[in-house]
Amino acid sequence: MKTAVVGCGAVGSYYGARLARAGDEVHFLLRSDYDAVRRQGVLVRSPEGDFRVRPQCARRPEEIGVADLVLIGLKTTANAAFTELLPPLVGSRTMVVTLQNGLGNEEDLARLLPVQQILGGLCFVCLNRMAPGVIQHIGYGQVMLGEFQRPPEARTHRLAARFVEAGVPCSVSENLARAHWEKLVWNVPFNGLGVASAAGWDAFAQADPRSSSCLARPASRAPCLTTDQLLADAGWTRLVRELMLEVIAAARALGFAVPEAFADEQIQRTRSMGAYRASTLIDFERGQPLELRSLFLEPLRQATAAGVPMPRLAALCEVLTDLDQRIPNG
Amino acid sequence: MKTAVVGCGAVGSYYGARLARAGDEVHFLLRSDYDAVRRQGVLVRSPEGDFRVRPQCARRPEEIGVADLVLIGLKTTANAAFTELLPPLVGSRTMVVTLQNGLGNEEDLARLLPVQQILGGLCFVCLNRMAPGVIQHIGYGQVMLGEFQRPPEARTHRLAARFVEAGVPCSVSENLARAHWEKLVWNVPFNGLGVASAAGWDAFAQADPRSSSCLARPASRAPCLTTDQLLADAGWTRLVRELMLEVIAAARALGFAVPEAFADEQIQRTRSMGAYRASTLIDFERGQPLELRSLFLEPLRQATAAGVPMPRLAALCEVLTDLDQRIPNG
Repeated sequence: MKTAVVGCGAVGSYYGARLARAGDEVHFLLRSDYDAVRRQGVLVRSPEGDFRVRPQCARRPEEIGVADLVLIGLKTTANAAFTELLPPLVGSRTMVVTLQNGLGNEEDLARLLPVQQILGGLCFVCLNRMAPGVIQHIGYGQVMLGEFQRPPEARTHRLAARFVEAGVPCSVSENLARAHWEKLVWNVPFNGLGVASAAGWDAFAQADPRSSSCLARPASRAPCLTTDQLLADAGWTRLVRELMLEVIAAARALGFAVPEAFADEQIQRTRSMGAYRASTLIDFERGQPLELRSLFLEPLRQATAAGVPMPRLAALCEVLTDLDQRIPNG
Repeated sequence: MKTAVVGCGAVGSYYGARLARAGDEVHFLLRSDYDAVRRQGVLVRSPEGDFRVRPQCARRPEEIGVADLVLIGLKTTANAAFTELLPPLVGSRTMVVTLQNGLGNEEDLARLLPVQQILGGLCFVCLNRMAPGVIQHIGYGQVMLGEFQRPPEARTHRLAARFVEAGVPCSVSENLARAHWEKLVWNVPFNGLGVASAAGWDAFAQADPRSSSCLARPASRAPCLTTDQLLADAGWTRLVRELMLEVIAAARALGFAVPEAFADEQIQRTRSMGAYRASTLIDFERGQPLELRSLFLEPLRQATAAGVPMPRLAALCEVLTDLDQRIPNG
């Protein structure tokens, strides 16, 4: 299977490397990391065993041409690049799988491609990109595949089989949209609060859930908080839980029966993960734009459209938007 | 793929016929229907289009020999026959998929086979066997596959792909046990109360949830009730809902986060199904033994072992056991 990886950060590189190691023809579309990956390949350090692969490297999608499978690992803030990057890679039988965070990415693809070529792959994995071509796999790794707005097709299951053969645990959901909302139950609080903590506790402690306009913004910068730091503090943990319950209520209003008990389960599971830096923390600390739209604004928009109030998420969006604007451009 | 269908009632025949129609080598292991199926094949009448296939027919498993796939559609009351029926069909690479109702079937297989050869296939389908070799497909049809006590393997996804190619919608769960409990939320009330109604409403209306010993048993026989009849009556609907909530509470205690909202969803969905005769009604009306253990007693046992009281299910088990014993043997 000829695979093109578009967006070779931690997620794209990790799954692309697993497929390459299993013998697939894998092409990495690279910009800043092109020289490093061409020289030394991709090194994956993993508790399951370190390995290095040497994928084919390209700077432009035309060098790769039409692929059987396109894995998209771009930051969602870069989705505008789909228009330029994807057409040379996609033929009439190409599967395009977005491995990206949050909501709206399949819809962005659907502006360019027929819906029946679009899949989502939700990644439950702890990864960090340590350097160009060096990926630290910390734990987990499973992917949940689903078709965009359709039930699973035979090719979806064949792709899942290939992932499993390549050492990637995989399941196939009959409802991709529901799976996205379940994943947001974790992503919204731990990605959001981990960065919002930089605005200081007061931004939330004083936020009136009925009005997000009273947020205090301290002049001094507080630190980002890892998952274990958030859960070591009763106040932050309460906010984590309240945000989770808001996401669950929104999911239910949209027709996805996510149980309230899911919140405490996720908190318990996260306690066992130790000190994890959610991806939005890393983006923020590196001065990169935050994935605001897919992780926070689009869920808020969908909930609002369904008539579900999400006052905590609204306050979080305001804090994060403010922090994001403080990141210098360029 | 060489497939053996063991238990050629509605479920086994339907899925076996779909695979045969898609070109697989399918063998039916038959007893009472042997002559009819050998003469006329299997006719599936379906809203998706009628079709007839002519599978290979055998009376003894030795005539079939080792298969790649064994689909088990036996009534769970016949699981003792596994010992005699399965060994000739199962080699070291054979997948054995139980399509049967309820809990305990994979465990029954595990007494004979290595766990890594055992899968469950939960069937969400409305079928009736109208005559030997004549299956009426009423609606739905999807299968949820899962490995027994393990995450999905590549071959599970390949089997799912084959099902989809054969016209069977299919997903692959990472947690078969949870999927079983979710399915019980529907099966326990609609299979159970549909038959228990034959003991009369009083058997339940007067049952004290804290003691199932006060069940009244009318001498006269009331009718079985189809799904729409149960949901046309406020009292039965309340019992349906209470049983669903008991099953959900048990599932949660066992670690499967099934939401309470799932109960009302299932009731709404069932209202749109019209007048459906759950399989236990048909068994009862035909004087066949009821699937008591897998659908009712084993869930009650697991819940009790987990410290969860299920007074409504306990009362239901008592009524059904009594009714089952009134069915003449032979």
